[in-house]
Amino acid sequence: MRILIVGANGTIGKAVAAELSERHEIVTAGRSSGSFQVNIADPKSVSELFSAVAKVDAVVCAAGNVHFGPLEEMTAEQFDIGLRDKLMGQVNLVLAGREFVSSGGSFTLIAGTLSQDPVRFGVSASMVNGALESFVRAAAIELRDHRINAVSPSVLQESMGAYGPYFRGFEPVPAKRVALAFSRSVEGAQTGRIYRVE
Amino acid sequence: MRILIVGANGTIGKAVAAELSERHEIVTAGRSSGSFQVNIADPKSVSELFSAVAKVDAVVCAAGNVHFGPLEEMTAEQFDIGLRDKLMGQVNLVLAGREFVSSGGSFTLIAGTLSQDPVRFGVSASMVNGALESFVRAAAIELRDHRINAVSPSVLQESMGAYGPYFRGFEPVPAKRVALAFSRSVEGAQTGRIYRVE
Repeated sequence: MRILIVGANGTIGKAVAAELSERHEIVTAGRSSGSFQVNIADPKSVSELFSAVAKVDAVVCAAGNVHFGPLEEMTAEQFDIGLRDKLMGQVNLVLAGREFVSSGGSFTLIAGTLSQDPVRFGVSASMVNGALESFVRAAAIELRDHRINAVSPSVLQESMGAYGPYFRGFEPVPAKRVALAFSRSVEGAQTGRIYRVE
Repeated sequence: MRILIVGANGTIGKAVAAELSERHEIVTAGRSSGSFQVNIADPKSVSELFSAVAKVDAVVCAAGNVHFGPLEEMTAEQFDIGLRDKLMGQVNLVLAGREFVSSGGSFTLIAGTLSQDPVRFGVSASMVNGALESFVRAAAIELRDHRINAVSPSVLQESMGAYGPYFRGFEPVPAKRVALAFSRSVEGAQTGRIYRVE
């Protein structure tokens, strides 16, 4: 397979590339790294990405920003960051990518455990991850030529330096395990699934 | 209690008003009806609503638009309708309402069964309802002075004329049963709950 990985230079993206490159051709994209640059929050940038990359058999996304902060201080603009970037950014990849992904190909998006298990300061991430899970379930029943799944990991072992204080008591997961879930989605046959890695 | 119902003139809003007005003082708001007008998608309009309404003990929302249509034709702009209105509109009510809702008071938002059980053409509604459920779970752990819940109904008996073709095989629920779930939220003690009416 020829697989486009968006966010290929992040902790998860690198682990997914390592897992999938053993068996497949990998095309990397990222905001400022990888073979192709893309701002997923901008539908035009996403369209240009696919025009440049051309046909692939799978799209993997391991990118997306949200604002972390106390609900008490959150503004509509701060919620908007996650809605534009992690949520609609990934939806943009699906909307624009359909005509470039081969028949029978797949989309695998990144959600996160906060949809189900919230933490302090994570209200925007919870909202966005919940939206992504329901989007994937819904899109799966309408996409006739493609599969779509999401991977929903707990906090990463590799990110505990930065995120540890938010996730006390959570069992962190190594990016390598998260990459296996992406492999199940890309190389499996399911659609509409949320692969939780906890 | 003094209870603000946003969307009080809709099918659900009217049923909630009927249920709660037996025991409480009801203040009605809506886009073009009710005692106060508000466009929930506009944070400024929501702030003005609360300034005009002043102190309440509970906020109930039974309002919010999303775009229904085939995923194949959906644009980012069409997804945006639901994100602005049903999702952020209700979040705006929480953000602006906190200082006007008395200590121990509550917010009850409206989600919907499509978060879990998608139907054709409902991908935006699924996304928005999933976002709302996760938002409610997350907001509940950070709101110290207030409770927050969501009611997630199946298709309404009263709406089967318009929505029946989308919801074949679903058991429609009468608005009166949905109103009971709002009453459980407003008059109960739970927080972070999704009351499913199916």
